[in-house]
Amino acid sequence: MEVKAYAIPAPGQKLEPTTIQRREPGAEDVLVALQYCGICHSDLIIANSESNTDMYPLVPGHEMVGSVVEVGADVSGLAVGDLVGIGCIADSCRSCNPCDTGDEHYCDTGFSLSFNALDKQGEKTNGGYSSHYTINQRYAVKIPDGLDPAAAAPLLCGGITVYTPLKRFGAGPGKKVGVLGLGGLGHLAIKISKAMGAHTVMLTSSASKVSDAEKLGADDVVLTRDPEALEAHAGSFDFIINTISGDHDVNSFLPLLARAGNMCFVGAPQSPAPIFIPNLIMGDKLMSGSLIGGMPATAEMLQFCADHNITADIEMVDIDKVNEAWERIEANDVKYRFVIDLGSLS
Amino acid sequence: MEVKAYAIPAPGQKLEPTTIQRREPGAEDVLVALQYCGICHSDLIIANSESNTDMYPLVPGHEMVGSVVEVGADVSGLAVGDLVGIGCIADSCRSCNPCDTGDEHYCDTGFSLSFNALDKQGEKTNGGYSSHYTINQRYAVKIPDGLDPAAAAPLLCGGITVYTPLKRFGAGPGKKVGVLGLGGLGHLAIKISKAMGAHTVMLTSSASKVSDAEKLGADDVVLTRDPEALEAHAGSFDFIINTISGDHDVNSFLPLLARAGNMCFVGAPQSPAPIFIPNLIMGDKLMSGSLIGGMPATAEMLQFCADHNITADIEMVDIDKVNEAWERIEANDVKYRFVIDLGSLS
Repeated sequence: MEVKAYAIPAPGQKLEPTTIQRREPGAEDVLVALQYCGICHSDLIIANSESNTDMYPLVPGHEMVGSVVEVGADVSGLAVGDLVGIGCIADSCRSCNPCDTGDEHYCDTGFSLSFNALDKQGEKTNGGYSSHYTINQRYAVKIPDGLDPAAAAPLLCGGITVYTPLKRFGAGPGKKVGVLGLGGLGHLAIKISKAMGAHTVMLTSSASKVSDAEKLGADDVVLTRDPEALEAHAGSFDFIINTISGDHDVNSFLPLLARAGNMCFVGAPQSPAPIFIPNLIMGDKLMSGSLIGGMPATAEMLQFCADHNITADIEMVDIDKVNEAWERIEANDVKYRFVIDLGSLS
Repeated sequence: MEVKAYAIPAPGQKLEPTTIQRREPGAEDVLVALQYCGICHSDLIIANSESNTDMYPLVPGHEMVGSVVEVGADVSGLAVGDLVGIGCIADSCRSCNPCDTGDEHYCDTGFSLSFNALDKQGEKTNGGYSSHYTINQRYAVKIPDGLDPAAAAPLLCGGITVYTPLKRFGAGPGKKVGVLGLGGLGHLAIKISKAMGAHTVMLTSSASKVSDAEKLGADDVVLTRDPEALEAHAGSFDFIINTISGDHDVNSFLPLLARAGNMCFVGAPQSPAPIFIPNLIMGDKLMSGSLIGGMPATAEMLQFCADHNITADIEMVDIDKVNEAWERIEANDVKYRFVIDLGSLS
């Protein structure tokens, strides 16, 4: 079927309105009328990557919320009218060991990203800057009651990205957790870490973000450009979630970790980070990385957020302002996530 | 008391015979007549460091084995005639939480290295290239029966350095462990990992080391300069212990790790290692560091080695050949650890 969308026609060009084809729902598919789509920094990175030349026109977007408007004959557990989310994962093989254990994002055959990728039938995936999405029921997650649909959209990528390592590495009562970087990921990390019961500390280079971090729930804020502040917190963090996507001096933050402490990267600096290895040896410290989460974890995260009244702080934009929104993201000018009101598409 | 030793008189000079003062054993001290001392690469690094200008003349050595020849009035558990080992730790505060939990190497006041440091009385520590050592009983560990005293000496630093992370990160049956670098640390890592029950794979750039690694017990050897071999083992290692102390391309080895796999550094390259962070994010991988171990862990490691008949492969040298031995270590020309026969001092 033909549906409305915004696409980048060719590398380097701006987003513009277009129409794309969505498949008719198969027996296990649902058709979702999209209401909201978050704008994630990854949209910009992938859209500007030089390795995508055969994927244009490119429809970005992987933080979608909408309502089910059609279900295939074999769909169970989802019904017309259900509010669902679609995140990064649009498809996987559904039969390998990672898929069987709910780690679809580590599917042995590679998962299909919900945009700018090929699904398991070899068709290009078009993302959430559009009016509808057809998807196998496995990859559409019910949005629990009580979550605002627009503000829940960024949870589908940003939320699961920070929830997974916070849970994996034991954020909770008695633990001191640092959040490096206050943006789309960082502001969700503060909220989720705090809800998990950890003593949650914002680590920021910017004095202007102190009050914002406190409003978000941070127990403390450390100004990372203040050597005395860094010294006062040296060796004290059990865990630091590093959400900075730009290049930065990691070595200056490793001394903040306690013995056996762990810094987990969820932002992806594009240049290799020079790591002074004795910073890991002295103190038996760890560095780690974490990639989103599978479908069961995504459902769990959404329920956790509903239980703790957590959504993203968003700025809503109509889709005809999406290019301006992208420019503002490049300039770090958003608190903290743009969400496109897809009602503006029609 | 005055005892014989070899010392570096001043920075950049060679080791030469001298005499040094050891304290008379106090109530909790033992006096150890040293028989053997391993030569660890750290001896060379610290002796050549420019930050040591007030520590000369410098007596190196921190892998000592000898027999107790005198005990203080309050010594219990050690007696004259006991064979003991002395490693990196010569002193600590003995009252902080890390000391109380057997992590003397993370003493809140800083532990005293057994050479080139100050002990808790403010006296310079002189290392094991000497005939005797006076030490608080806490830091002298009984050498279990069955271990060759000379070949056990390198266990006091090299052994505990690799044992600690192999145990911490679960080397054992069903796990695939890689050992990067075949030297003093690497050859012990192969033996200990294998004895723990892990499938143990030597990772080396040198075809000439294949048969050596197999003789040491490696289940497999991967030539890291062979792209096909690296590809064949990609994503398969639960744990890699990285014993390389020179600068090297860490990014080329991270893809060998399985999901959530961990590369632990026990060698300390002097230049910062450029790490491409997405290599950690894709696969939820970890990097870590590990520093020796405390006194209870050292005793446990020695018993493990005795139970599994593990010692270092050594080349014994008289102390008047110690400068040649240092030169050969700089040239990587030893299989795999020099041990000084301190009988040659008299």
